[in-house]
Amino acid sequence: MRPQIVLFGDSITEQSFRSAGWGAALADTYSRKADVVNRGYGGYNTRWALFLLHQLFPLLYLQDSTKPPVAATIFFGANDAALLGRTSERQHVPVEEYKENLRKIVNHLKECSPTMLVVLITPPPIDEAGRKEYAQSVYGEKATELPERTNEVTELYAKQCIALAKEMGLRSIDLWSKMQETEGWQKKFLSDGLHPTPEGNAMVYQEVIRVFYEAWLSAGEMPYDFPHHSEIDGKNPENAFHQQCL
Amino acid sequence: MRPQIVLFGDSITEQSFRSAGWGAALADTYSRKADVVNRGYGGYNTRWALFLLHQLFPLLYLQDSTKPPVAATIFFGANDAALLGRTSERQHVPVEEYKENLRKIVNHLKECSPTMLVVLITPPPIDEAGRKEYAQSVYGEKATELPERTNEVTELYAKQCIALAKEMGLRSIDLWSKMQETEGWQKKFLSDGLHPTPEGNAMVYQEVIRVFYEAWLSAGEMPYDFPHHSEIDGKNPENAFHQQCL
Repeated sequence: MRPQIVLFGDSITEQSFRSAGWGAALADTYSRKADVVNRGYGGYNTRWALFLLHQLFPLLYLQDSTKPPVAATIFFGANDAALLGRTSERQHVPVEEYKENLRKIVNHLKECSPTMLVVLITPPPIDEAGRKEYAQSVYGEKATELPERTNEVTELYAKQCIALAKEMGLRSIDLWSKMQETEGWQKKFLSDGLHPTPEGNAMVYQEVIRVFYEAWLSAGEMPYDFPHHSEIDGKNPENAFHQQCL
Repeated sequence: MRPQIVLFGDSITEQSFRSAGWGAALADTYSRKADVVNRGYGGYNTRWALFLLHQLFPLLYLQDSTKPPVAATIFFGANDAALLGRTSERQHVPVEEYKENLRKIVNHLKECSPTMLVVLITPPPIDEAGRKEYAQSVYGEKATELPERTNEVTELYAKQCIALAKEMGLRSIDLWSKMQETEGWQKKFLSDGLHPTPEGNAMVYQEVIRVFYEAWLSAGEMPYDFPHHSEIDGKNPENAFHQQCL
């Protein structure tokens, strides 16, 4: 009954309902107005995401009497940008393919619903020192000296994400650039050099809300799914509910 | 595709996706396994909740190819227990009717799906001093001296909630009693004498998880909706996804 907003992405999306997470904050903002559905898949890159597409977003929406989402965030790239020849190379996807995979995802969503608001989000920047500390905390002395991701390479992915959004006329969030505008972004916004801290989550939330509002998907403008309790007459509650059905 | 867990209740449910909220924590625990759907309606009592029942939980589930929820929490009573003749009397529902309304809600859910795990949650205790401070902070000198809720009256509702669970063979959470087992519960668990603090939210979460696990709805036992990334062969990703379909 309520419109759906789907968050599709990797671990930064999957973990977005943790305390102070950006997904939970969105769910709270759209409370009683839209359902925020988490479709985050930790460790996934865009190549693997393609395998999920038809099941997560079936083309049968209209036949099936269920409605397609009104909006979706597409937030991949952090794993695609893992370097070849390093510990996370299994997740690597070449940047050209990353861009084309994103295009396929967008095309599929637009086929489900041409009016769906699709927002592309770039991967966050990489704090290489933070990644190294994290690897040492997990693997101890066995941690390799060479980083599995670099900020320089991740930038290439972020740029292609933004370029695709421009090509396709989509709204986008350049998280890679936005985070780096703040001094000390490495520790302020990233907990392990990659995943957002509570402050990083707050930035992702604010950016998504800003873009949603610019696209008129403003919670303030959307109706409650049932009367607000203050509109219910204690003696004749049925009046409020009948009105709702008109 | 994923099973649904519905949280049906009043403001304590509606606000459960705020930072450190019990609903968001549940959503995170069941991440990639079940969707936690918030159907909290601030200010609602059980009488008003009945107006929503058929729309929120349609009996047409099977005809419609959509599946009914696997579990639901029913968490009302804080507003039903508002006192007659006080500022929130509009929300008051007599305790006998509260119990019968809960019974109607449960019967409807069981009609939707006899196997649905239905968990009744009592209202939390009331810290009358906390309610008074809250009223003064909002209304200043205009705040009435007399409390709109008392812990004594709310206890009657909590007891009927637990009694109904026993009658109907349902699992339940006696939040009213549980919170009061801890010294200083008034400020530790309640922010305004009624709504839970982060620690109060943590208690609600732990109690719900405990009951879900006792009923075998354990996230650890449930399958991921798609392969975990560690099971995906970087060179032949399709293998993992084909396996999933077998």
